[in-house]
Amino acid sequence: MDHFSNGDIFVGEIIGTAILILFGAGVCAAVNLRFSKANGAGWIVIAFGWGFGVLAGAYTALPLSGGHINPAVTIAVAAESGEWSKAPLYIVAQIIGAFVGAVLAWAAYYSQFAANADSETAQPTLGNFSTIPEVRNPVTNLVTEIIATAALVLPILAFGVTKELGRSGSTVLIVALLVVGIGLSLGGPTGYAINPARDLGPRIAHSVLPIPNKGTSDWGYAWVPVTGPVIGGLVGAGIYSLAF
Amino acid sequence: MDHFSNGDIFVGEIIGTAILILFGAGVCAAVNLRFSKANGAGWIVIAFGWGFGVLAGAYTALPLSGGHINPAVTIAVAAESGEWSKAPLYIVAQIIGAFVGAVLAWAAYYSQFAANADSETAQPTLGNFSTIPEVRNPVTNLVTEIIATAALVLPILAFGVTKELGRSGSTVLIVALLVVGIGLSLGGPTGYAINPARDLGPRIAHSVLPIPNKGTSDWGYAWVPVTGPVIGGLVGAGIYSLAF
Amino acid sequence: MDHFSNGDIFVGEIIGTAILILFGAGVCAAVNLRFSKANGAGWIVIAFGWGFGVLAGAYTALPLSGGHINPAVTIAVAAESGEWSKAPLYIVAQIIGAFVGAVLAWAAYYSQFAANADSETAQPTLGNFSTIPEVRNPVTNLVTEIIATAALVLPILAFGVTKELGRSGSTVLIVALLVVGIGLSLGGPTGYAINPARDLGPRIAHSVLPIPNKGTSDWGYAWVPVTGPVIGGLVGAGIYSLAF
Amino acid sequence: MDHFSNGDIFVGEIIGTAILILFGAGVCAAVNLRFSKANGAGWIVIAFGWGFGVLAGAYTALPLSGGHINPAVTIAVAAESGEWSKAPLYIVAQIIGAFVGAVLAWAAYYSQFAANADSETAQPTLGNFSTIPEVRNPVTNLVTEIIATAALVLPILAFGVTKELGRSGSTVLIVALLVVGIGLSLGGPTGYAINPARDLGPRIAHSVLPIPNKGTSDWGYAWVPVTGPVIGGLVGAGIYSLAF
Repeated sequence: MDHFSNGDIFVGEIIGTAILILFGAGVCAAVNLRFSKANGAGWIVIAFGWGFGVLAGAYTALPLSGGHINPAVTIAVAAESGEWSKAPLYIVAQIIGAFVGAVLAWAAYYSQFAANADSETAQPTLGNFSTIPEVRNPVTNLVTEIIATAALVLPILAFGVTKELGRSGSTVLIVALLVVGIGLSLGGPTGYAINPARDLGPRIAHSVLPIPNKGTSDWGYAWVPVTGPVIGGLVGAGIYSLAF
Repeated sequence: MDHFSNGDIFVGEIIGTAILILFGAGVCAAVNLRFSKANGAGWIVIAFGWGFGVLAGAYTALPLSGGHINPAVTIAVAAESGEWSKAPLYIVAQIIGAFVGAVLAWAAYYSQFAANADSETAQPTLGNFSTIPEVRNPVTNLVTEIIATAALVLPILAFGVTKELGRSGSTVLIVALLVVGIGLSLGGPTGYAINPARDLGPRIAHSVLPIPNKGTSDWGYAWVPVTGPVIGGLVGAGIYSLAF
Repeated sequence: MDHFSNGDIFVGEIIGTAILILFGAGVCAAVNLRFSKANGAGWIVIAFGWGFGVLAGAYTALPLSGGHINPAVTIAVAAESGEWSKAPLYIVAQIIGAFVGAVLAWAAYYSQFAANADSETAQPTLGNFSTIPEVRNPVTNLVTEIIATAALVLPILAFGVTKELGRSGSTVLIVALLVVGIGLSLGGPTGYAINPARDLGPRIAHSVLPIPNKGTSDWGYAWVPVTGPVIGGLVGAGIYSLAF
Repeated sequence: MDHFSNGDIFVGEIIGTAILILFGAGVCAAVNLRFSKANGAGWIVIAFGWGFGVLAGAYTALPLSGGHINPAVTIAVAAESGEWSKAPLYIVAQIIGAFVGAVLAWAAYYSQFAANADSETAQPTLGNFSTIPEVRNPVTNLVTEIIATAALVLPILAFGVTKELGRSGSTVLIVALLVVGIGLSLGGPTGYAINPARDLGPRIAHSVLPIPNKGTSDWGYAWVPVTGPVIGGLVGAGIYSLAF
């Protein structure tokens, strides 16, 4: 990551992560909220929406910063290469970008959030911003996030090994479809954060945005989708270093 | 865009946009109308149908005109490059093409429109041509269209930066999947025009076609899906110019 | 097509079209027949099943015959290039291959066809072999098949113009996704034959296979999904010759 | 396969197959088990989950072992090339990897398996590990697996013929989408093992894992999804040798 300038990294990761979360929080709102044409459209829509958010965000950021848009990826790349100096810059930009993306998704679905706010029928809104486990158990939730993130990071590192493609557009497409696959296969228990910024940035947005009847921001769970993906990224990098 | 001849631009954009709308209006008819095998098949079908319409239309037009098939893309490219002289030609051809595509989709679903026309059970038909917001509010509808279009245009401009691909077939595929993603994630509130020609051309077709019991063409809303994408294209080009 | 040997063309088109129909008739059986895990899985499954059948069949046949696997494509390529001498060989092989593929799909779903045959609950089986219109009207059915086939052939011919890709694996993928899109968008009225061999070969198989309680082979409709795609192929080639 | 070292083959095939089964067993758990966000999400989710598991697993293993991750592919490649010496190593690693992947999927869905174990509502759990036919008939089940595996292996071998791509990332993507297609089209009767390790490894895991109320491991059927794909791989290689 050392050949990108600090300014490009900062701007690229903010834009890329904002696009990712705009698509990701957007597709959750599309499926969850009433008065949306995609209301009730199911898990296939969620998984492809997030995956194509990776496609859009990572491809846009590619020429500026390499398109990490995920602290777990940044940490894994740093652990594998030993280049840690720019990792904090990446991660700060990713969290800012995720916050911005969540605000944009809320703006795009403003009328739907407003319609939801009626006190008689208001549903909790956090699920359109951050992850919520189906069965709340910190140990198993953490295990799920570790496994899912390692399954993201290890292929990404291995993809770099096949030098034929490098980090071109085709590689971004394959990573995007990989994320679709992780959502389909491993998203069931916790909603697959697999990205600390993806969960933390939107949770901050949920806390501060003036959404009527928005319900809890559930800060008690917030450490799991941050810690799990960080550990998973290190596990993935460790397996990669041992095996390749 | 200056290296394409005027004739090629005109023909290419008409054909490309006609194919886009044939697929897009077609998939709406496929899902919405009775006596269609895809009736009720859901939002995943809508989003992939429109996205693969972009694939077919943009790829076909690629050698003739570069395959914009969307005035918002043309305006963004012109704003970024400063080459405005051929933009009007592109846009006129796109609107003509969109009109032609809507007529073709109506022809392909002629029996389904006829079956719908029975006065006892006739449903409004505009949704098979143009966009209709779920919650009618010009301000929020406009905001949604601006955000969604900027999310289309910014990645497209950035894709051009990654010179490895240029505007090849693989790039068209990535743009097509990007449009699938915008549909899944940001189509819920307004049905995602993100393309002034996509909405205006078919609305004109709806006005003039002899469809029994067709219902309103809703001209009062028509300015939103034209204005929003134009603003969104300029916003996307502006972010691009600042960031890249 | 003149640079392939007659033997390779014959073998390649039989194998490629057999794979196409194995996947296509297979996905219809998967969704339509009871005691299948995909029973009732919907139009998205049908459209992707057929599209990935094109991917499998055309890619397999690519080095032997160019992977037409569709008489409408062969006729369009011949009309555009003026090389008609090998077209009959292609078409005969395609019809044989389609027959073989339908027999294989029936073999793969033998237990499901057997379970269907109970006289109390037997459903007509033709829909797992050939197309059946939702509204039976030769004129509108023919129009739908002409439009849908032209929308297949014109992009395929245009793809060849973008010499960057040629007929490589990536081009086959784009054609496969194009077929997914045609299914989603234009398959609603008639079930989208868009390929004379795709309809005729399996209809012959349906006629001769010993399926209990199989119902009619509906030969009265058989001319539509043969004639429509032939006309559509010529229309697509004509537009191509005029525009490009 | 002779140009990979024994150590790389062993490690690569274990990792690649483990990733495949993590995704594949994971998506079955995601759709089948209660308290999963994808519960009831349907066959389209199953087929894409398995296919993108191939994408992730084969692409990761590509630089180490070529990414077979399936004994049927290894046997077909060996039969076609005559190089059998390393096939046993591939196959042993694939079975070990499949076992590991199933254990990881169980760990990721630990809370869901626990919730299922209540004796009042416990459902059999084998379907989240190995294949179960819809209609149990060894002959027809075997025929289905032979046809589906030949339809996997023949295109894979033919893909190698088109030397433009070789075994690059794009080829892996095409194989992954081919597997999605086989799932959609030919998975209905038996759940498409098409891979002896995919069925045997997870079945061993199901036998030994401490899952309460897990139900039978159904060893009486285990020979079918091993034998069928082996025969299918040889059939595919045989057709390839004759035709190409």
